[in-house]
Order: sequence, then structure tokens, then C-alpha cells
Amino acid sequence: MNEVETGVFTYTVHARFGDCDPAGIVYFPRFFDWFHQAMEAWFGDALDLPYHELLKARGLPAVHTEADYRTPVRLGDRIDVELRVRRIGRSSIVLDYRVVGHDARDLRATGSTTCVLMGTVAGSPEHMKAVPYPPDLRARLERFKQG
Amino acid sequence: MNEVETGVFTYTVHARFGDCDPAGIVYFPRFFDWFHQAMEAWFGDALDLPYHELLKARGLPAVHTEADYRTPVRLGDRIDVELRVRRIGRSSIVLDYRVVGHDARDLRATGSTTCVLMGTVAGSPEHMKAVPYPPDLRARLERFKQG
Amino acid sequence: MNEVETGVFTYTVHARFGDCDPAGIVYFPRFFDWFHQAMEAWFGDALDLPYHELLKARGLPAVHTEADYRTPVRLGDRIDVELRVRRIGRSSIVLDYRVVGHDARDLRATGSTTCVLMGTVAGSPEHMKAVPYPPDLRARLERFKQG
Amino acid sequence: MNEVETGVFTYTVHARFGDCDPAGIVYFPRFFDWFHQAMEAWFGDALDLPYHELLKARGLPAVHTEADYRTPVRLGDRIDVELRVRRIGRSSIVLDYRVVGHDARDLRATGSTTCVLMGTVAGSPEHMKAVPYPPDLRARLERFKQG
Repeated sequence: MNEVETGVFTYTVHARFGDCDPAGIVYFPRFFDWFHQAMEAWFGDALDLPYHELLKARGLPAVHTEADYRTPVRLGDRIDVELRVRRIGRSSIVLDYRVVGHDARDLRATGSTTCVLMGTVAGSPEHMKAVPYPPDLRARLERFKQG
Repeated sequence: MNEVETGVFTYTVHARFGDCDPAGIVYFPRFFDWFHQAMEAWFGDALDLPYHELLKARGLPAVHTEADYRTPVRLGDRIDVELRVRRIGRSSIVLDYRVVGHDARDLRATGSTTCVLMGTVAGSPEHMKAVPYPPDLRARLERFKQG
Repeated sequence: MNEVETGVFTYTVHARFGDCDPAGIVYFPRFFDWFHQAMEAWFGDALDLPYHELLKARGLPAVHTEADYRTPVRLGDRIDVELRVRRIGRSSIVLDYRVVGHDARDLRATGSTTCVLMGTVAGSPEHMKAVPYPPDLRARLERFKQG
Repeated sequence: MNEVETGVFTYTVHARFGDCDPAGIVYFPRFFDWFHQAMEAWFGDALDLPYHELLKARGLPAVHTEADYRTPVRLGDRIDVELRVRRIGRSSIVLDYRVVGHDARDLRATGSTTCVLMGTVAGSPEHMKAVPYPPDLRARLERFKQG
């Protein structure tokens, strides 16, 4: 379902009835769910760390997110959500998303989300604190960093 | 927002843009979320046990649910979700719902959900097992039993 | 993504973060959205009538739906939603769903939805009235009828 | 349920089970739905133009939206979503949102959405074109403009 090209992870979705609003187009908050779905698939398919495995001792909550809507996504549209890494800090990561239709020029929306890696094991000194990316995970994340 | 009459708990919602599908009516799975919201409000407002408090040591998962749709709920409609208790077993409970518009004759949908009280404390002998309703909670639940 | 076997249409989904509730399992109303997604994919992939094409002159609203939950679907689970036709009337159709995990014995939930085909063209004599399935569509629907 | 103070519209929601993710906090895309719900309530309760009435000849799609998350909203929290107008253009409007808990200092999240008023009557010269706010609506919108 998903392809991994150099530096880009592509996640395919179909705009379904339940995604669409009375105007017949995808309800705008839904794009943020697609962004998160793409990130989850990326972890499992491209980073060799299924997202639910990551969550056993870590969390990766969003601290900022945004989207710009250009052309509506309509019921039945097949859509590619492209994920790229813009920046990796010690604990933070900024992911860029492009929502495209038939081809790369058919741009429907862009967006980005900033997340922070946190410890979630109760009783641990890292509990609810920002923690650094482990070196091996960081190396895999870097492969999706742009130019 | 919610009224407690004898044996009936009423939860009011408005059909919002994000609840509606391209036909301009509330997407049918959304009713089950409204049923659950009504149950959550009922616990806090009528049973004196906020739902998030219940969840500290218990779960109340659905094992069966169903709905019949009569008249569409449209964008902007103000709707009352009425909750009644049909049956209480040792661990199970069957809740009946009526979704009404302007008045009780303006019936839009009916439904019911069967839930089972379970222990959720890891390591406890009751973990993931059906557990009986505590007597005081059972007494309060009984007040919403019909006929 | 989807396979068409004799009489069964299979739609694959992954249980994502946004599908799951604080108990870490898929929130029970979400299954009804999966049922509808499976039906939409079935129209386009197996019935040669994309669902958004159907909607240009018709609607197929649910009049009844139900589900039984057996084993929780957890974050990260890969799930097959199997669709079968139980009964086709003049305008109504009853679809049965089975939600399975690793294999057919790993049954997580079952459900069914009854829909009615309606005319939706304003001004038409069929507007908001039940209409019969066209013969060619009926023939294709019949291929998914059980035993 | 909602209060109108000078220049601020407040919309109250409760964080329900279906709003929360496996971390037990409100799933971040859900805030955008709350923003839109607040805007819908504002139209009907404060601007004397129910949102579904507006939609009969107009649309108000989002072209940009963003949010910053400070402190998680947890299951059971009672939350106020405050809406303020930051800027009104000819057809565009920028709405600012603050998500607060117990009081104004208990800030959970902030956000904003930019929408554009469009004509939606098929065949009209304004169809799918940006249109100006009618003077009476503009006057009512201005009452919620800050500083």
C-alpha cells in the first residue's frame, strides 16, 4: 500500500463517505488524522519500529500542527500523503506533509506537525520528560530528511 | 444541559457539520458515539460516579450494540438522546436509547447497547474478568430501569 | 488492498492511534465506519460502480445496523473486514460483516447493516422514495449472496 | 451552554471517551473539530445566523488552520473553547481559539483558522468564488474583533 522512495514516505488513502462533510469534500480536521496515520505507517513500514512498539515506553505527542488547503479532496478520490522530515532536534521532530491526487502537480493540501519524544514509564526519571532519540532510530529518521 | 427525570436520563446534542455526511444528514455510526456520550454524562450527572473515575479500576466495554434509523437528523438539529436501563445482570447491563427531535413523537432513531463490567487492574484476580456491580452503584442504576 | 473471492469481499484496515480509545482498543462505533468503508470499496472494486457514482442519483441509507464484539482489536492490528450479502429485496439489502485478525478463526467482531436504495434527484417522482435495484446491479450484488 | 461576553464567544465541551486516544488524552486532530463546533454555535447563538442557514447559499471553507498544544486535555475534563475574531477581510476571516480548563490561566491549547466566504449556488456567477460579507453580517462579526 505504501512506497518508500529516497527521503519520502508515501501513504495512500481513499476519501470515504465518513470523511466527507455536507459540502461533499473531506472535512478539514480529517487531514490531521491522515497525517498521523501516515506517520504510524512510516514507523512500521520504513523505520522498522511499529508505532505501537514505540508507545510501550515512549510517547510522541504533537506540540504544533498546521495545514493549508488548496484544492478540495472529494468523495472517492485516491490520495497520496507524502511524509518528509524537515528537522530533527534532540527530542523534537518536524514532519512535512503533502497531500496529492493524480500526480505531484495535483497538490490538494500541505501541512506539518511538530512532535516531541517523551518517556511514559511511570516511576521512571524520564516520565513525562523529553528524551533524546536513540542513535539507531535517529539514523533511520535522518534518511527522510530533505536536502 | 442534561435533565434527570424519573427513570430517564436526557442528553442534548447538536448535529454539527463534522457529524454530517455528504447527504447533509448525521452519518449513521455517529449515533453510537452519541449513545456513549450520553452514558458518560449519565454516570457523572446522575449516578454520582464520573465515568473517568469508574475507569480507574473498571472497564465497561460494549459486547453488542444496534440502532434503527427512522428519520434523518440534519445539520443544525437540536437532539435529545434519552437513556433508559432495560436490564441489569450480575455484570452486564442493557441500555436503551431514543433519539428525539422537537418532542417525544419526533423520533429519529432508537438503539441499545449491552456492556459488561470488567476488572482492569493488572495483576488483580479480576483482571479482564466480568465483575459484579457494587451494591450502591447497582441501586443507582436500578432507578433508571423501566416498567 | 482488497481481494474478491467467490461470494466474499475482503477489505483490509489497520487499527490506527485515532481509532483507539483510552483502553488502547478500537472504539466500538468505529467498526460501523469500517463496515461502510468496506461497502464503498466493494462498490468500486467488485461491483464496477464506484460509490460516489451511485450517489449521483441514488442514496443507500442505513435503516438498521448492529455489531457483536468478541475480541478487542488493538492498536497496530491488521484487520480484514469481510463483506457478504445475506439478503436482497426489491430496494433493501442486508450486508453481513466479519472482522477477522490473523485468520478466519481469529474472529474479533461480526455485524450487519440493512440499507435501502432511494432516489435523491430533487423534483423526480422517485425523490426520497425506495427504488428497485437496476437488473444489472442486482445481478452483480447476487454474486456475493451466501449459500 | 454558551456565553457571549464582549468580544469573546465561549463554547463548552466535555472530553469524552471517543475523543481520547490510547494515551488517555484528547487526540490532537479533535481540537480542530471543537474549533469548528464553536464557530457553528457562534453563528447561531451570537451572530443570529444559524450555520446551516448560512450554508444554503454560501460556504465558509478553511484555507489554513493551526494549533499549539500546551497541556493535555484528559478524559472527563470540562473545557471552554473561546473564539475571537482576529481579522476580517473582504471575504476572509481569521478566528483565534483558546482552549481553557478551570480558568483562563489553565490554558491547554491555542489555535486559529482562516476561512473564506464563497458562493455555492450552482449556475450563479458567484459559484465557487470568494464573495464579500454582507454589511449586516460584517457588523456582527466586528463585535468579536479584538483590540
